[in-house]
Amino acid sequence: MTPYDRLSDRFARIATVGEASAVLHWDASAMMPSGGGAARGDQLAVLAGIEHAMLTDDAVGDDLAAAEQSPPEHEWHAANLHLMRHAYARATALPADLVEAQARANAACEQVWRQARANSDFAAVAPLLAEVVSLTRQSASALSPVLGLSPYDCLMDGFQRGVTAADVLPVFDRYESWMRDALPRAEALQADAGAPIPLKGVFPADRQEGLCRSLAARAGLEASNFRLDRSTHPFCGGTPTDVRITTRYNEGDPAQALMGVLHEAGHGLYERGLPSAFARQPVGQAAGMAAHESQSLIIEMQSCRSDAFLRWLGPELHGTFGGEAAPYDSRNLRRLWRRVERGFIRVDADEMTYPAHIILRFRLEIALIGGDLQVADLPGAWRDGLHGLLGIVPPDDARGCLQDIHWYDGLFGYFPSYTLGAMGAAQLMAAARREVSGLDDATGRGDLQPLVRWLRSQVHEQGNCLGFNDLLTHATGKRLDPSDFETHLTSRYLSALALH
Amino acid sequence: MTPYDRLSDRFARIATVGEASAVLHWDASAMMPSGGGAARGDQLAVLAGIEHAMLTDDAVGDDLAAAEQSPPEHEWHAANLHLMRHAYARATALPADLVEAQARANAACEQVWRQARANSDFAAVAPLLAEVVSLTRQSASALSPVLGLSPYDCLMDGFQRGVTAADVLPVFDRYESWMRDALPRAEALQADAGAPIPLKGVFPADRQEGLCRSLAARAGLEASNFRLDRSTHPFCGGTPTDVRITTRYNEGDPAQALMGVLHEAGHGLYERGLPSAFARQPVGQAAGMAAHESQSLIIEMQSCRSDAFLRWLGPELHGTFGGEAAPYDSRNLRRLWRRVERGFIRVDADEMTYPAHIILRFRLEIALIGGDLQVADLPGAWRDGLHGLLGIVPPDDARGCLQDIHWYDGLFGYFPSYTLGAMGAAQLMAAARREVSGLDDATGRGDLQPLVRWLRSQVHEQGNCLGFNDLLTHATGKRLDPSDFETHLTSRYLSALALH
Repeated sequence: MTPYDRLSDRFARIATVGEASAVLHWDASAMMPSGGGAARGDQLAVLAGIEHAMLTDDAVGDDLAAAEQSPPEHEWHAANLHLMRHAYARATALPADLVEAQARANAACEQVWRQARANSDFAAVAPLLAEVVSLTRQSASALSPVLGLSPYDCLMDGFQRGVTAADVLPVFDRYESWMRDALPRAEALQADAGAPIPLKGVFPADRQEGLCRSLAARAGLEASNFRLDRSTHPFCGGTPTDVRITTRYNEGDPAQALMGVLHEAGHGLYERGLPSAFARQPVGQAAGMAAHESQSLIIEMQSCRSDAFLRWLGPELHGTFGGEAAPYDSRNLRRLWRRVERGFIRVDADEMTYPAHIILRFRLEIALIGGDLQVADLPGAWRDGLHGLLGIVPPDDARGCLQDIHWYDGLFGYFPSYTLGAMGAAQLMAAARREVSGLDDATGRGDLQPLVRWLRSQVHEQGNCLGFNDLLTHATGKRLDPSDFETHLTSRYLSALALH
Repeated sequence: MTPYDRLSDRFARIATVGEASAVLHWDASAMMPSGGGAARGDQLAVLAGIEHAMLTDDAVGDDLAAAEQSPPEHEWHAANLHLMRHAYARATALPADLVEAQARANAACEQVWRQARANSDFAAVAPLLAEVVSLTRQSASALSPVLGLSPYDCLMDGFQRGVTAADVLPVFDRYESWMRDALPRAEALQADAGAPIPLKGVFPADRQEGLCRSLAARAGLEASNFRLDRSTHPFCGGTPTDVRITTRYNEGDPAQALMGVLHEAGHGLYERGLPSAFARQPVGQAAGMAAHESQSLIIEMQSCRSDAFLRWLGPELHGTFGGEAAPYDSRNLRRLWRRVERGFIRVDADEMTYPAHIILRFRLEIALIGGDLQVADLPGAWRDGLHGLLGIVPPDDARGCLQDIHWYDGLFGYFPSYTLGAMGAAQLMAAARREVSGLDDATGRGDLQPLVRWLRSQVHEQGNCLGFNDLLTHATGKRLDPSDFETHLTSRYLSALALH
């Protein structure tokens, strides 16, 4: 075996352990009785430790050095070797005691955060968050010289390789300006159009579930490789051949589960479409979290909230749930499911204001990691920041800086992915419309396959061979360019036609 | 850390990886879409390889030698160290290429067996079974000098430490004689009593499931630490704090699921009751497969098919399923659910003829491993053996030597556990009746807790500190003694009162 072959073998084994953890994570959310929680925590920790030990073994360093002497000529294998080096560099840059201290501090902080959020009591969790931030800063500083990136960029790199704060800052600044102008206009148009007719009545969970299953199948998830279950926090987990989507059903409003499952189906289709020839290799994985979010949002936001799809979906919904027909008219569904609204909660935000929530977090976490903002000052900075962006001030910290789990679980550098994904989705959709003839007609027949086929070849099958910007260039001819997102929002929210 | 502490840590980590595998096994049977099968096989193989590597690491040998210089004084820790040595000796006795060859041969044989059984085509699988037997013999021969046991006893030792063929042979011979006399008498009494009234109608799966859940709760499985799901082959899996039972529902006959779940609940209660102070240590595990089977059979056969329990269960069933009351009269349920019948299929056998199926397999597998029987001669030897024991001859190999997966999956030395468990269950029940006042009265109120409490203290909390015979001696005052099983069968099947 060559050094590269040995590395391939080892990374495949590491990824296989990661698959086991993925199924155990899904099980913990969707299946596990509460009493199994402590043992499950141990199981996941032991598997994570095993993965880490396999990755940081001295033999990996030796094989990398040897393989790099005569790197593989094939582009994918060369990229694979590069990604192996990158993973090894990240894993070995951090001393084991720091990794352990972070795991402990994150778990302790997350635990206290649950209660602190329920009580809107930031002071209760502040010292633990300060410890998490301090350890995250240490970790980022240790990575910085190894990766040749600023500390904050090292954190972003963990989620979205090849995208830096310097790439994101001008994009977000430009969006903020655009939104300042667009949001009041969209609100005015919306007010003129009058209130939509709400969907009234009871929407039984089992009927919602049946519809979600049929929509997931329509998106292209095969019953042989896919499950749909229930959990408190919807997600897409599992492995490329065994996709596990969860959702929750609100019997007063079917939109949450329907749109949630379509969103997660986008994630699942990406995993299903990854190049099987490079399964379990670093280059065969998804190309980071922004790329992943672009795939969920192109299905949910770009395709399934489009005029064309809602025209098809309305009668389907009416057929499933019965009652009056008027609320299911696609013009009403558009007004119901595409409303802009300045709110406090990120996960409830519409697609125009959602980036404002991300911009706020992005700026605050740069300041936290840079040492320019102290944890004690976070609630005030949050209130000021949201007021500056959306002109509203959260009435308490539960609806302010306590709302998201991310920071309290040690996740910094992740938030930008959401908006990079939204912008990427719009850019991809514009390209797909140019390249796939009859795309909107198919969508209007409830047929998502022409879009999914294009995504499969242009995005999914590219695996992790390209970084986010190179992937966009490959698929759309240009690097991340927010203008397609602005064009999309303009057409959807700033044209009187779109609302009437 | 002392060498013993290091060993404890390592064995806990090994057991934790084993827990992950247990959940993945359950998932594969109860949840996984078919397309996930190949990846799941890899996940389980990689985890098994990791467990094996952790167990056979040179550091284990060094720490064992050091710890054995001054073994722990506490009885449980001493027993734990002894079990660690035993596990290490078993794992290191086998060369890695033999272990791998066995894994491959077993998997290939099992695969072909599925089709061979469906076609009743022994010739199709015979060469693969011959390879499995050959490798099993090699493995048993390699273990023999290390464990100081005969090759076949080394295989038994893998499932039921401390029980040898020499222990089992006289017990089985004695049972054969007893049954030769008892079976025709039981059949005659049964014929005199006339046919029972069958349970007729449709028994909806969801109502059966509700009843199964309430019976499992009644047996003592808490919703916080237990799930009940569906699978083709019912089993009890999971971990001590997270018991996963599966069953299947026949809508024409509720007895299969009800009695099946009670059987698996007995297994689950054992796992739940293991000593948590020694969780994940060898000494904190169950005391082997015969002990495990004794716990499932004492719940299902001894307690829940008793006159007392059926008197309570009848009205419960009638309340759940409705219809005429007569079939649910406990005298009728006894005649329905406690029928002796000479049949071809082990898993369908009643408790009196079940040991005959085991005796047949036990004798044949001793001959196969000893080299006294060739695989090609197995079908004939099976027919002759069954005819000798029960006076019947299977019409084809599907109902003969192809019926069980065990051998085709490389499991030899396992079969005796079933009957040792049945005998142990009768012996434990006789002791419980002596020691727990009002036991049958409680059972007659559907209250299994007095029995379960006694089992918890006498069996479950003993973990794997004692071997099977010492465990029986601890709980009942004597080593395995088949007379309690014979007394039980006599009272249940050979008393005219029992049937009327």
